[in-house]
Amino acid sequence: MAKEITSREENYSQWYLDIVKKAELADNSAVRGCMVIKPTGFAIWENMKEQLDRMFKETGHVNAYFPLFIPKSFLSKEADHVEGFAKECAVVTHHRLMNNPDGSGVVVDPDARLEEELIVRPTSETIIWNTYRDWIQSYRDLPLLINQWANVVRWEMRTRPFLRTAEFLWQEGHTAHATRQEAIEEAQQMHEVYARFAEDYMAMPVIKGAKTANERFAGAEETYTIEALMQDGRALQAGTSHFLGQNFAKAFDVKYADQNNKEEYVWATSWGVSTRLVGGLIMTHSDDEGLVLPPKLAPIQVVIVPIPKPQPEIMEAAERIVAELKAQGISVFVDTDKKKRPGFKFAEYEMKGIPVRIGIGKRDLAENKVEVARRDTKEKMSYGLDQIGTQIKNLLEEIQNNLLATAKKYRAEHTTSVDSFEDFQSVLDTKGGFISAHWDGTTDTELKIKELTKATIRCIPNDQESEDGVDLLTGKPSKGRVLFAKAY
Amino acid sequence: MAKEITSREENYSQWYLDIVKKAELADNSAVRGCMVIKPTGFAIWENMKEQLDRMFKETGHVNAYFPLFIPKSFLSKEADHVEGFAKECAVVTHHRLMNNPDGSGVVVDPDARLEEELIVRPTSETIIWNTYRDWIQSYRDLPLLINQWANVVRWEMRTRPFLRTAEFLWQEGHTAHATRQEAIEEAQQMHEVYARFAEDYMAMPVIKGAKTANERFAGAEETYTIEALMQDGRALQAGTSHFLGQNFAKAFDVKYADQNNKEEYVWATSWGVSTRLVGGLIMTHSDDEGLVLPPKLAPIQVVIVPIPKPQPEIMEAAERIVAELKAQGISVFVDTDKKKRPGFKFAEYEMKGIPVRIGIGKRDLAENKVEVARRDTKEKMSYGLDQIGTQIKNLLEEIQNNLLATAKKYRAEHTTSVDSFEDFQSVLDTKGGFISAHWDGTTDTELKIKELTKATIRCIPNDQESEDGVDLLTGKPSKGRVLFAKAY
Repeated sequence: MAKEITSREENYSQWYLDIVKKAELADNSAVRGCMVIKPTGFAIWENMKEQLDRMFKETGHVNAYFPLFIPKSFLSKEADHVEGFAKECAVVTHHRLMNNPDGSGVVVDPDARLEEELIVRPTSETIIWNTYRDWIQSYRDLPLLINQWANVVRWEMRTRPFLRTAEFLWQEGHTAHATRQEAIEEAQQMHEVYARFAEDYMAMPVIKGAKTANERFAGAEETYTIEALMQDGRALQAGTSHFLGQNFAKAFDVKYADQNNKEEYVWATSWGVSTRLVGGLIMTHSDDEGLVLPPKLAPIQVVIVPIPKPQPEIMEAAERIVAELKAQGISVFVDTDKKKRPGFKFAEYEMKGIPVRIGIGKRDLAENKVEVARRDTKEKMSYGLDQIGTQIKNLLEEIQNNLLATAKKYRAEHTTSVDSFEDFQSVLDTKGGFISAHWDGTTDTELKIKELTKATIRCIPNDQESEDGVDLLTGKPSKGRVLFAKAY
Repeated sequence: MAKEITSREENYSQWYLDIVKKAELADNSAVRGCMVIKPTGFAIWENMKEQLDRMFKETGHVNAYFPLFIPKSFLSKEADHVEGFAKECAVVTHHRLMNNPDGSGVVVDPDARLEEELIVRPTSETIIWNTYRDWIQSYRDLPLLINQWANVVRWEMRTRPFLRTAEFLWQEGHTAHATRQEAIEEAQQMHEVYARFAEDYMAMPVIKGAKTANERFAGAEETYTIEALMQDGRALQAGTSHFLGQNFAKAFDVKYADQNNKEEYVWATSWGVSTRLVGGLIMTHSDDEGLVLPPKLAPIQVVIVPIPKPQPEIMEAAERIVAELKAQGISVFVDTDKKKRPGFKFAEYEMKGIPVRIGIGKRDLAENKVEVARRDTKEKMSYGLDQIGTQIKNLLEEIQNNLLATAKKYRAEHTTSVDSFEDFQSVLDTKGGFISAHWDGTTDTELKIKELTKATIRCIPNDQESEDGVDLLTGKPSKGRVLFAKAY
């Protein structure tokens, strides 16, 4: 099987598509730009959701659900927002089909035209703030800390499974606050939650920083981002958290009476991550043999393969091991297929990224041992059966840590400080990755650099050091470095 | 607060709407027929989802996700299906908006018309079976046991929160099988799962049965249903499971090679429950004081109210009780508001349906006691603080059981056997409820009875007894009774 995967070196983009297909994560659908998320891909997303949802609830948020459709006029109410979102979207114009008078199937009933077109939500700020107007009267109604798990649609021209699809699944937090400061702290808190999730669960290191004015969310005063680095040297924007100021409150007239009964516009944040994270997960860890998954998000953490095939003695041992693993909270699958050879199965589970494989053979069993293979390093080891549960649990932790360390090492090796435009271009052309460089702070320069090199400013890092320098392109003064990269 | 609720007797329909509003379960939205599910309403749905999802996984199903949009032509492929579903739906015709040349907001870009219109899924059989064609080649690919949690849209003219909304949330299982028998068994198994969920978690007794041909799902050969009885004597179809025969396999050309390499069409089932269940839950148990929730699905099971207000000694006791309740897996909220009086809080939590209220006052505390009130019977009791966790756990179980018993009693009292059309009409006009009567088995008669009385055949019960009789209306022979009711 493995040979069916294109190598990263040969064609990185095809390698990614091969993994998505061969590891059975997603499929194309009959609808342009929309994917089908297959059970394994969806199980990864479910695991992500479970952890994120817990982290949101631990920080005081509750879930709710708002309509899929947004009246067209809502999109025009916030000036920047309409520019950013109203363009490529799915527009519902009718509410009925009818039998084609010529007998050939169904056609749109011209009499069922909607008075006002509905847009399938590309994001929900407008419909939610229109609702918040009814929910918020006084400071006692604040803060309002709400999250929604939903599907959204943005009509994309060039799509790739998980990374960019017309319909995608995501969560969108929408919070309302009495003060500017509290809203900023909320946006920063969720930025931290995203970074912690990326590192602790996805084993995907991220740079935390703020977007430049030009790269901000449409309608935001500040956009915080986590940026990850993929194995082709491109950055992936993995999650964003926005301080929206009073923009949406003003657009939808949402005011609250403070303790002195003075009316004030409400302060807002929004923040989201999507099924794009599954794409980031795939690209961060996988190799030319297939998918590599961090144990904390792997739907199946351990697979047991009888060698050469299921036999009573081996199956008995397998059952004992399963019981010990389950007692440690480890998810395990026993392959009882009698037709496929072990070698074939090994390749298949490597392809599917199962973190640990246990091979049980009679000879090993006689010595009270099993063969253990870890997916990340492909190392094979002999484990005694005593306390196998604890041993495997420790191994899964080690794999989780190793994946993060490896990704951090890759990122460190692919982060370069440069001080001239020539070097900038040369790093982009050779190793890629993050480039730390001085920038004069203007959108003009940012856009020129993008035009010349396709690289964009990924973020102004949170840990930016104060340092005098000059802009790469214009030579104008700069007080600190920002992070550039080509991006997904 | 409670007085703001219309009584059931005065206006049942308004009573329901009052509870939805005052218990903060859902709100109307700016989009016709679409509701906003508020945090409390959504938490109930999340609790339902969690249990159902576990039950689906325990019966071997996995989750996946299919596109929101269905190409218009797909709907025409299964003849009955298009009749049932293609009519009132949301039709996407364009994929772009543009600035109105006159400067007044945005308009649909006429150049962005889709070649083929897309329908927002009213149900997903068509897009899923179009996908299954690629997933199923041989008997080794079967059975395919997939479920999807999703939003769907059916353009409804008359809507009511949870019970009937244009957009609603649901799960839809779609399974594929090698044999007719296996598919029938799957449809029956899920029917059982739904019935068990309704009784064990919702404390909502249901009648299990099959739909008549006329009431079947569009495209099904058999539809199994669970039917519950609401307090106004109307039935609520709470969940359906369909044996689809080979209809969708034929429409989408899905065949498998059997063990002898002979090609056969695949057998199908689909089954679903929706946010409608939240409506059923509300209507089954609630009273004129507000919402009543079964403990197993209540987002908050116990509320603690300091009497008359939070004071150090009382709060210390509250913390100890919280710890004991949490140790028993009970969800608990302590109301620390200092401004509202206990009486006001009591009414508020009755309105919101919190199953158990614990009042902590100094005098009781001195005697090592607290006051415990149960929402279902409104009984007040004095509990000693020793083993309060276990005591409350037992009380919650008792409440859960009592709610089911009460609903069963109501149903028994509102199920009437009748043998003449006159009695049929009279029962419908007076007490309502389920009416068990003989029917001649024809769609003609079924429709006539519906026209005359607005009552429909809810189901042919699984436990139907063989009994000779004559049809109410036509006098033609019948072999057993079916269940009629007016329905939501």
